[in-house]
Amino acid sequence: MTLDLQGVFSPLTTPFETGGPVSIADLTRNVGLYNRTALAGYVVLGSTGEAVMLSRAEADSVLAAVKATAGAGKILLAGTGAESTAETIQRTQRAADLGYPAALVKTPHYYKPQYKSEALIAHFRRVADAAPIPILLYSVPQFTGISLEAAEVAALAEHPNIIGIKDSSGSVQRLSEMLAAAPPSFQTLSGSASTLYSSLAAGARGAILALACVLPELCVELYAAYRAGHQERAQKLQELLLPASKAIVAGPGPAGVKCGMDLRGYAGGAPRSPLLPVSEGVRQEIQKVLAALPAREVACA
Amino acid sequence: MTLDLQGVFSPLTTPFETGGPVSIADLTRNVGLYNRTALAGYVVLGSTGEAVMLSRAEADSVLAAVKATAGAGKILLAGTGAESTAETIQRTQRAADLGYPAALVKTPHYYKPQYKSEALIAHFRRVADAAPIPILLYSVPQFTGISLEAAEVAALAEHPNIIGIKDSSGSVQRLSEMLAAAPPSFQTLSGSASTLYSSLAAGARGAILALACVLPELCVELYAAYRAGHQERAQKLQELLLPASKAIVAGPGPAGVKCGMDLRGYAGGAPRSPLLPVSEGVRQEIQKVLAALPAREVACA
Amino acid sequence: MTLDLQGVFSPLTTPFETGGPVSIADLTRNVGLYNRTALAGYVVLGSTGEAVMLSRAEADSVLAAVKATAGAGKILLAGTGAESTAETIQRTQRAADLGYPAALVKTPHYYKPQYKSEALIAHFRRVADAAPIPILLYSVPQFTGISLEAAEVAALAEHPNIIGIKDSSGSVQRLSEMLAAAPPSFQTLSGSASTLYSSLAAGARGAILALACVLPELCVELYAAYRAGHQERAQKLQELLLPASKAIVAGPGPAGVKCGMDLRGYAGGAPRSPLLPVSEGVRQEIQKVLAALPAREVACA
Amino acid sequence: MTLDLQGVFSPLTTPFETGGPVSIADLTRNVGLYNRTALAGYVVLGSTGEAVMLSRAEADSVLAAVKATAGAGKILLAGTGAESTAETIQRTQRAADLGYPAALVKTPHYYKPQYKSEALIAHFRRVADAAPIPILLYSVPQFTGISLEAAEVAALAEHPNIIGIKDSSGSVQRLSEMLAAAPPSFQTLSGSASTLYSSLAAGARGAILALACVLPELCVELYAAYRAGHQERAQKLQELLLPASKAIVAGPGPAGVKCGMDLRGYAGGAPRSPLLPVSEGVRQEIQKVLAALPAREVACA
Repeated sequence: MTLDLQGVFSPLTTPFETGGPVSIADLTRNVGLYNRTALAGYVVLGSTGEAVMLSRAEADSVLAAVKATAGAGKILLAGTGAESTAETIQRTQRAADLGYPAALVKTPHYYKPQYKSEALIAHFRRVADAAPIPILLYSVPQFTGISLEAAEVAALAEHPNIIGIKDSSGSVQRLSEMLAAAPPSFQTLSGSASTLYSSLAAGARGAILALACVLPELCVELYAAYRAGHQERAQKLQELLLPASKAIVAGPGPAGVKCGMDLRGYAGGAPRSPLLPVSEGVRQEIQKVLAALPAREVACA
Repeated sequence: MTLDLQGVFSPLTTPFETGGPVSIADLTRNVGLYNRTALAGYVVLGSTGEAVMLSRAEADSVLAAVKATAGAGKILLAGTGAESTAETIQRTQRAADLGYPAALVKTPHYYKPQYKSEALIAHFRRVADAAPIPILLYSVPQFTGISLEAAEVAALAEHPNIIGIKDSSGSVQRLSEMLAAAPPSFQTLSGSASTLYSSLAAGARGAILALACVLPELCVELYAAYRAGHQERAQKLQELLLPASKAIVAGPGPAGVKCGMDLRGYAGGAPRSPLLPVSEGVRQEIQKVLAALPAREVACA
Repeated sequence: MTLDLQGVFSPLTTPFETGGPVSIADLTRNVGLYNRTALAGYVVLGSTGEAVMLSRAEADSVLAAVKATAGAGKILLAGTGAESTAETIQRTQRAADLGYPAALVKTPHYYKPQYKSEALIAHFRRVADAAPIPILLYSVPQFTGISLEAAEVAALAEHPNIIGIKDSSGSVQRLSEMLAAAPPSFQTLSGSASTLYSSLAAGARGAILALACVLPELCVELYAAYRAGHQERAQKLQELLLPASKAIVAGPGPAGVKCGMDLRGYAGGAPRSPLLPVSEGVRQEIQKVLAALPAREVACA
Repeated sequence: MTLDLQGVFSPLTTPFETGGPVSIADLTRNVGLYNRTALAGYVVLGSTGEAVMLSRAEADSVLAAVKATAGAGKILLAGTGAESTAETIQRTQRAADLGYPAALVKTPHYYKPQYKSEALIAHFRRVADAAPIPILLYSVPQFTGISLEAAEVAALAEHPNIIGIKDSSGSVQRLSEMLAAAPPSFQTLSGSASTLYSSLAAGARGAILALACVLPELCVELYAAYRAGHQERAQKLQELLLPASKAIVAGPGPAGVKCGMDLRGYAGGAPRSPLLPVSEGVRQEIQKVLAALPAREVACA
């Protein structure tokens, strides 16, 4: 039976102790708080989780800690994409060994000029062939410079072990084209809080949103309003999310998400270098944006 | 005393055995052949060397093998750039331990929208502070989506442990701006065979050229002609390099370099997945381009 | 009283006789056919109308002919954007003299690197100050390389003579940001059939669609379904529009629109050089896409 | 006999009187000053001349005035590129009627996504077929978003009435590829002062430089030094031109060129709206850059 990826997922940040090591204590505290929300689940070791900054040992400890802490019913997705096909397969195997039911595999990207459709399709097919758990594609062009397009997604959706995609491009048109090209059973998730409502309206099954690390209730509420047929309520909530997404995620990236988490009572902290903590100006801007949200939404987690 | 980086360096490819592991035998055979040329030295674990495809253990074995095989007088540069500052420092330390006199550190790049000047400058300063050997900056926007500009280079050139840059952007204007902005002691190397002559004319001290893995003699000859004041001869050689660089490097990337090496008697072989071997059509195009070069230049290595 | 720009507008193509001159006969025939539809009105001398290919005298004859032929209740918008502010004002004055109730003013664009916010805002304010009729902004980055952003739109929306915008960027996020930033009275129209449903869901008041020159009934039906609260019907229609928009508009441009018009019984014809008529392959693709639409929608006009 | 386009040309600015009309008096005064230099000739109605801001009547008056004033031996090139092929031919015919020996024809560009190689090649061939005078191609991607590549240039260079190209892309690699692909009789001019030395070294026959409106002596001196084989002198001069080109041309565009002209005793003045005059900060930066040049070069014209 296939995983059902409806709803909103948060891609967990990785908290660090002063001086550097991963803070498993802070990580599990955050997961405990998220467990009380209606989030559908968590992505571990994604872009927001600074996975590219972690050693293999650190990545393992994060995977294990979240697996041990996640609430019943929360679906866990492990980020396992690496530059080489072989390493991606190893990481996916490792996630499966640790009990993860599915993996989120970002596109390889270093050799951009050479990663044409043929290479990308072959890569994902090999990973899917070898993976003991189902995989989701992950397209995040703002970080990788590579975008999966509808034709590639349609070709990969035929593979029985590729069950969906997270498209973080933010283009509703591209998302619509994917949805039109892939079979209905293929699960398309949006990675963009700025276009959550439009993405749902276009047919997305759910979303994985960095903003949901800061504002899980508000993101979930928009999703629920849309599913309940409350279009106007969903649109209103989208208007609230728009400036928050820009100020917290699009501009400052993981450091912004962590700052927003700090302001809302989660354990955020500083990102790893070369990412810099947000400047005082950005922190105030995030504070302002959060303060402008309706009181109920910003009640401390 | 500072390393003097005049001349042409080849960024060594990493040969793989059928089935996957690094072939140290093929690697050392290639180095042996290059030792007979007038190449100034080698870059180990660069973009052309598929460094992003290697495990840490594999990277160590490659560093050790080249160190043991390189001819007397050949300068060795270790590619040590990783996504995190801490990992970059560790790799640089490791290269120093293995006897490398300098490291080539590519820009971090995953969080592009956040890697503004401030973050990049802080990263390179921390690496340079911690590194037991001098470092060179490495800007390769076609792969990373990040380009170091003259102002950043000038700021970093002030650090006593940052001795130069490899700029692979291919923009002679950007190279000229760097040269104008940095002090004369800062060593600027071009990473683009298509503009080698122009780069030397603009003031580059040398070059690190993927094409020099296939055509070391021709690249060295252009460099020598320019230094000897034989402008016309250098320009003629540049005209020969132009189509070769396009057919072998710019289009097919590392797979093209390996194909060209196979055709000239070096151990090329296939790249690691997701890179694909060149198609038959590309192989024939590379063969044609090589055949069009003057007989002397293509004499088998 | 302000013009109410609800609904779908078609940006009329300019038919040419064999050998070159504008065919006013074909133009008025097309308008006559469109008059029988529920289109809200017409844009004259837009991008789809090849306005940049016409002499001033030709432009005048087109404006006059459409004014004389448009059905009662059809709203007319004249495209009057030129590179210089002065010429834009002259053209807007001319449109007003010919009885047009409003003008659609595209961004100037030749000196892209210099057309920063300050220059664009000053330009539109001067045009709006001098124009005897209200104006709409027109942002079409695929042709101009310039995109109006929410902050600029918000600043310009304060001008009493700037009543709205046509945003053809296709970005639902940008459209949402404009809607959030401008006052409710400011009328935001989408220029992208690929994202019509999402744009309406995001709050667009209407749309100006090249595709509506070929498939006015289908475009109008989607709009009406959305306004009637029939979300699912609207989404279904959007799925039909998606491949049609790609095959007819996004790929081949005005030549594709004219080909589609020919296939549906309108007077399409060839575009002016350097635009080329569609190739036979593209013509067949358009034919295929049209044939795949439900019979009722493609009933010959 | 073909025009010989060696040397440096300045693309004349168009001075405006206060309130707007073209100042023929200022224009002819500037030409009189340039006549005393060793400039090879002038481009009239180019990008720097704000041709897109002029009415047909104004353009005619500018063409006539320069023709009447240009010194003996100065070669005149008329900018005649328009969006439509027919209008481009008319303007070229008009330039020929007014005694211009050749025309500089920029790429059409509005319908970028449709202007593929086939359309561009057909356009230039039609213009060349119909033109009573030889034409040069003009590629200026920073303004048009369209770049002519080596393969297109090689195809067009076969036309007997297409005698050369001005490539303003600033890419020495692209220029080198054009030179390698076109026959030796085809005259390739650079449009980029930042890479003048490298362009000459790569084989460019001459250059058309906005910077030569401000600093004709310095530009000519670099050209002459290169031709005389004084490489080091030419390189030194290039280093001087680099910051001047950036501060005066690349950043502020035509307004910067006009400001620099004012500061050196030419009639610069303000550009036409929507171009804005340079800010006070930019003016001071230009003044500083000019003051840093060796005294001899900045002696008032």
